[in-house]
Amino acid sequence: MTPDKYLTKKAKSLHPYVAGLQPQEPGWIKLNTNENPYPPSPKVNEILRSVDTMSLRLYPPGDGGLLRQTITASLIPNPTTEHQNSQQPGAPSVFCGNGSDEVLALAFQAFFSGKSNIHTPDISYGFYPVWGAMYDVGLNYIPVEEDFSINPAKYSGGNGVIIANPNAPTSLAAGLGAIEDILKQNPNGVVLVDEAYIDFANMPSAVALLPKYENLLVVRTFSKSHALAGMRVGYAIGHPRLIDALHLMKESFNSYPLDILAQKAAAAAFSDTAYLASTVEKVIATRDRTIAALAHLGYKTLPSQANFILINIGERAEELYEHLLANKILARYWNKPRIAGFLRVTIGTDEEMEVFISCVKQW
Amino acid sequence: MTPDKYLTKKAKSLHPYVAGLQPQEPGWIKLNTNENPYPPSPKVNEILRSVDTMSLRLYPPGDGGLLRQTITASLIPNPTTEHQNSQQPGAPSVFCGNGSDEVLALAFQAFFSGKSNIHTPDISYGFYPVWGAMYDVGLNYIPVEEDFSINPAKYSGGNGVIIANPNAPTSLAAGLGAIEDILKQNPNGVVLVDEAYIDFANMPSAVALLPKYENLLVVRTFSKSHALAGMRVGYAIGHPRLIDALHLMKESFNSYPLDILAQKAAAAAFSDTAYLASTVEKVIATRDRTIAALAHLGYKTLPSQANFILINIGERAEELYEHLLANKILARYWNKPRIAGFLRVTIGTDEEMEVFISCVKQW
Repeated sequence: MTPDKYLTKKAKSLHPYVAGLQPQEPGWIKLNTNENPYPPSPKVNEILRSVDTMSLRLYPPGDGGLLRQTITASLIPNPTTEHQNSQQPGAPSVFCGNGSDEVLALAFQAFFSGKSNIHTPDISYGFYPVWGAMYDVGLNYIPVEEDFSINPAKYSGGNGVIIANPNAPTSLAAGLGAIEDILKQNPNGVVLVDEAYIDFANMPSAVALLPKYENLLVVRTFSKSHALAGMRVGYAIGHPRLIDALHLMKESFNSYPLDILAQKAAAAAFSDTAYLASTVEKVIATRDRTIAALAHLGYKTLPSQANFILINIGERAEELYEHLLANKILARYWNKPRIAGFLRVTIGTDEEMEVFISCVKQW
Repeated sequence: MTPDKYLTKKAKSLHPYVAGLQPQEPGWIKLNTNENPYPPSPKVNEILRSVDTMSLRLYPPGDGGLLRQTITASLIPNPTTEHQNSQQPGAPSVFCGNGSDEVLALAFQAFFSGKSNIHTPDISYGFYPVWGAMYDVGLNYIPVEEDFSINPAKYSGGNGVIIANPNAPTSLAAGLGAIEDILKQNPNGVVLVDEAYIDFANMPSAVALLPKYENLLVVRTFSKSHALAGMRVGYAIGHPRLIDALHLMKESFNSYPLDILAQKAAAAAFSDTAYLASTVEKVIATRDRTIAALAHLGYKTLPSQANFILINIGERAEELYEHLLANKILARYWNKPRIAGFLRVTIGTDEEMEVFISCVKQW
């Protein structure tokens, strides 16, 4: 019995992404996958309660429907009443997908597959190297600086660039000037800016640069600031021709990757900007208190612009990870060059972070 | 402005699948995409009403969680109380995905990509050639017989086989003996049997053959008999090593393609076997009445084993399609060799099919 003989070369060669643990039983303080500690907007609850299940028998809009329209409308500065939902010439377009992971995987296929010299930082989202292998992308890993920041001068002449901003697991953000420097130095490829954590940063989104750069693609998710990781929704914003390429790629793969409830839930969450602002503010306040408490205990934390922190523990980082685990607190540890002395910890509620700090203190 | 220069070769070459029209405004009789005319099980409504949106902030189980367990448990003949949820040695395993389209796309990548001589009927699901091009699969199109049936003797020595059973758009089913003949003649590749419409056929599933053939992969969907097209859930059943390969492929692409509500809704629908049987029975009764009414009008219909029918209209098939469209009835017409004289019509409610028949009569 060796059914492996049926597998393709690719299937035999894969080293997939390993996501953080997702224990299904209660009792854990889960600070390992950068989820939001607060529920999604109450509007999500309302919309789900109002669903007529008769509507579930039909295929959903393949492009995200109302969700896509809602995001697109938000991109138009000073919309007039009449044209609120219509695409203006030259305006950026929107692609909706099954989590930003699906959007990123399709972007790798549409813009980077088979190409060499695609720049990306050596310390970044662990899924980039996996997609690189999956889609035959020649990733050029550019070392981050000593302080883990990105130096834009090192990113030039690529056939593409992939940057998470704020970056994970470093939590650091590059300013809009740095992103523009990278765009100027890479006119021949798509510059993909993965803004999964942008709502927690004190800087504007790279969306502001879209009118000037046709090769910029900004990718976002509903899994972090909108507290909808369970609903799997992400999107990309960019030049209509880049967005068309993503649609073409999707329609050669899966016509309807976003179910109707995911579309409705995300549209409701997106529109509730006041709720978004209030939960983001709470997470940032808790983050700053946690960093201060850690400093009080003698631990240095990188200046986070995200909903997680990277703490310099030193040689015993893995030991602390195990100590937390034994106390039912999940953090993230990587036994990898440069970051092996650090723990990444998601910002939970104030109560959760107090338990975390006590547990560190006790260690 | 030629942002196409940023695209990969693949992205520039694609001819994506064109799904049937999905009008968003009411007033249409929608008989074009083989959806179920009845709502999903009332258990789906119950489970969605009971969801605490706080749970949506967390990533869902990456493998389908309870849904996967529910389907797996159903495969164990005579389960004992104690072992109901545990995998027995040698028992087939289950992979859950974002619609059977995603499952099929991942199977193409895991088992067929880069290989030649993958047998498939020349008249079948229109997405197969699209995935063939997308994933560099050498599809070997084997003509169906004059009566549109599949002749198993013509399928031998392939590096893989892809068969929809019942087939679409023909609506015909091959018996289990024919499927086994194909398996015997193709020991060197995966034989994928796409059973999207099996619940409407008067024959058993190829799942019965799994204990004998380690290279058999059966793919199913919740979009047809379970009336959950809007929730995007499909699955594959096969040897654990084949299922492992699908998981590996998924985890190199998108860790969590099935959101938590899709998992819950599908698990609830799957468990309500009495409701499934009753709606399937209604659809089959309406199908048989519709075929009889068409015969009365002088139209021959293929002996359907699915929730749609393929009607021989002759030279004026496209005209009838347009006539139906003008009367807000959506059917499916393909201007392609061999099937250009036919219309494919989904079975709706009795009332919808009466309107359809009147409209044909009036023509």
